[in-house]
Amino acid sequence: MSHFHFELQARDGRARAGLLHTPHGQLQTPVFAPVGTQATVKALTPAQLEGLGATLVLANTYHLYLRPGDELVARLGGLHSFMAWERPLLTDSGGFQVFSLAGRRQVDQDGVTFRSHLDGTEHRLTPEKAIAIQENLGADIIMALDECAPPHDREYSQQAMLRTHAWAERCLAAKTRDDQALFGIVQGGVFPDLRAQSAEFIASLGTPGIAIGGLSVGETKEEMHAMLEVLDPLLPQERPRYLMGVGSPEDLVNGVLRGVDIFDCVLPTRMARNHAALTRLGRLNLRNSDFIADPRPIDPQCDCYTCQNCSRAYLRHLIVAKEMLSATLLSIHNLRMLISLMEDLRQAILEGRAAAFARDFLAVYRKHRPPEI
Amino acid sequence: MSHFHFELQARDGRARAGLLHTPHGQLQTPVFAPVGTQATVKALTPAQLEGLGATLVLANTYHLYLRPGDELVARLGGLHSFMAWERPLLTDSGGFQVFSLAGRRQVDQDGVTFRSHLDGTEHRLTPEKAIAIQENLGADIIMALDECAPPHDREYSQQAMLRTHAWAERCLAAKTRDDQALFGIVQGGVFPDLRAQSAEFIASLGTPGIAIGGLSVGETKEEMHAMLEVLDPLLPQERPRYLMGVGSPEDLVNGVLRGVDIFDCVLPTRMARNHAALTRLGRLNLRNSDFIADPRPIDPQCDCYTCQNCSRAYLRHLIVAKEMLSATLLSIHNLRMLISLMEDLRQAILEGRAAAFARDFLAVYRKHRPPEI
Repeated sequence: MSHFHFELQARDGRARAGLLHTPHGQLQTPVFAPVGTQATVKALTPAQLEGLGATLVLANTYHLYLRPGDELVARLGGLHSFMAWERPLLTDSGGFQVFSLAGRRQVDQDGVTFRSHLDGTEHRLTPEKAIAIQENLGADIIMALDECAPPHDREYSQQAMLRTHAWAERCLAAKTRDDQALFGIVQGGVFPDLRAQSAEFIASLGTPGIAIGGLSVGETKEEMHAMLEVLDPLLPQERPRYLMGVGSPEDLVNGVLRGVDIFDCVLPTRMARNHAALTRLGRLNLRNSDFIADPRPIDPQCDCYTCQNCSRAYLRHLIVAKEMLSATLLSIHNLRMLISLMEDLRQAILEGRAAAFARDFLAVYRKHRPPEI
Repeated sequence: MSHFHFELQARDGRARAGLLHTPHGQLQTPVFAPVGTQATVKALTPAQLEGLGATLVLANTYHLYLRPGDELVARLGGLHSFMAWERPLLTDSGGFQVFSLAGRRQVDQDGVTFRSHLDGTEHRLTPEKAIAIQENLGADIIMALDECAPPHDREYSQQAMLRTHAWAERCLAAKTRDDQALFGIVQGGVFPDLRAQSAEFIASLGTPGIAIGGLSVGETKEEMHAMLEVLDPLLPQERPRYLMGVGSPEDLVNGVLRGVDIFDCVLPTRMARNHAALTRLGRLNLRNSDFIADPRPIDPQCDCYTCQNCSRAYLRHLIVAKEMLSATLLSIHNLRMLISLMEDLRQAILEGRAAAFARDFLAVYRKHRPPEI
């Protein structure tokens, strides 16, 4: 694992600032990863992603396995080359998407059989297969196959956690490439004892990083925070922690405050395609006629390309006229908003003022936040 | 008209190389203008347009008058500011779109009454109104209101030409801004005597540039070329000529060889959204399964962002996966292809080898060209 190394630079309360070295360069943490489901962060070129400060991108194993196929991606030089992204990449195991295929999948001790959402063909995902696919794709950070249970079902959560542990061991055994970092995944629903048991087991595997799964899947914010607080003292400080699928501004702040280093979420780009802009003063729906003649940028404090060049009135026009450029411009802004938030949080951690930064941010954000979309 | 000045730098046969000075900077001619119908070149940011070498963009008066409204655009600082394009802009008069509204418009000597394609509301376009709208939009180059007739109908062509002449005089009289260059438009269908009469009349108005309308609307290539050959000696050499709505690679080359300086067309961006790539070796339909594992760029000779970064296999994947990024990447390539073709033609003109360049280009292009899409 010489290519992969985590340097913990500072702790401020539970919050951490670090440097994650990968074969495709180093990441400053905490870090937010935009999601490029089908080998593209929707509506953005890699150059635009670089321009807005993205350093890590997540791609989905399930989607790429089905289309265009991981073997084709390998033949074309791997996912970095395929999608023209030369910075670090992370892939999930495919498990989350497969387990989401209600009525189209069947799980057993050995793996999951499922039918493709594209053409109904039958496929099988096992721990070994999840690793083989991810080795073909070639991301810097890859994930063990896990099972994510409904968070309040104790029996199911325990069973899924035990399966996740057994599968993590099989993933480790199956792994052959030494230029990829495999992360084990902690499960256990909203149950502190299960989470503690899972943290202990996964930490014992010695993977170079640890992912936290099964959150932001139906539990309350308080439950999410409680689980992170259970995990922080049990997870090794010297390894990065990745909270999967979490990415609202307040979840990022609360996650960092509780010891998380890496996040990913479709929220900023999906919201962009639904005409919503994230700002530190809450969300704006730019389709709203309030903005018809508004000459201001989305956020006068924002340094993104969109805010430097475009008025709310122009963005509203593009939305009403159904122009694709609106998705591009809003995606640039929303991603820059989350990434700059992480940059500011990192700076606050390095300067020992993370709690104050978070308190101030959340006070303003909550005050302005409209009802959840 | 101190802001606007055309410098003829070289003639090579009928082909011309020049510099067009405008309030938003100078244009090297011959030049191809991407079309930004609704104040956006579809799927591209202004930064991407600048990056691929676009210097002039066309926007449509008809569309912007209806939505978001020219008065709103003026209130927001004009079209350059509104669409974040600080290089030269050109607007058409709105006439072409209005005359295309079959069954929804009625023309008389004074103007045209039409119903909006958006909401059926009734509107009136007159020469004075076309100028007022374009003055609100504030492009560097604006167009007189003209009537474009079916090219083979002599009686209609003559009547439309005479109306176009009367309207050009009214547009000139209505114009109030001195930082915009108004071009008169030559009509006359495929009839050499009408074209000659129109060229003489429009040239006599003394507008700083002259547009050629009513071509690429159903006539043959030979008829188009014949009309351009009639016009070249009759149009003043010291003023730029703009062939409206023309933009296939071979039409550009043939137009430049016959004395045209400015072109615009939706073809490259529309083809991009339909998965077709323009190359000097003909067109590629990138949805084709031939490209499923093709590691080559669209055109190994091309210097565009797409060809520098993306394989045909990746582009095909994006198309099959219905990802918007395919439209962006293909638009970048197709526009760069036409713009670099114009750059090469300009260089050939300056070096006195335009005919040879055109002959070589057309020989290769025709040989490879698939049946028209």
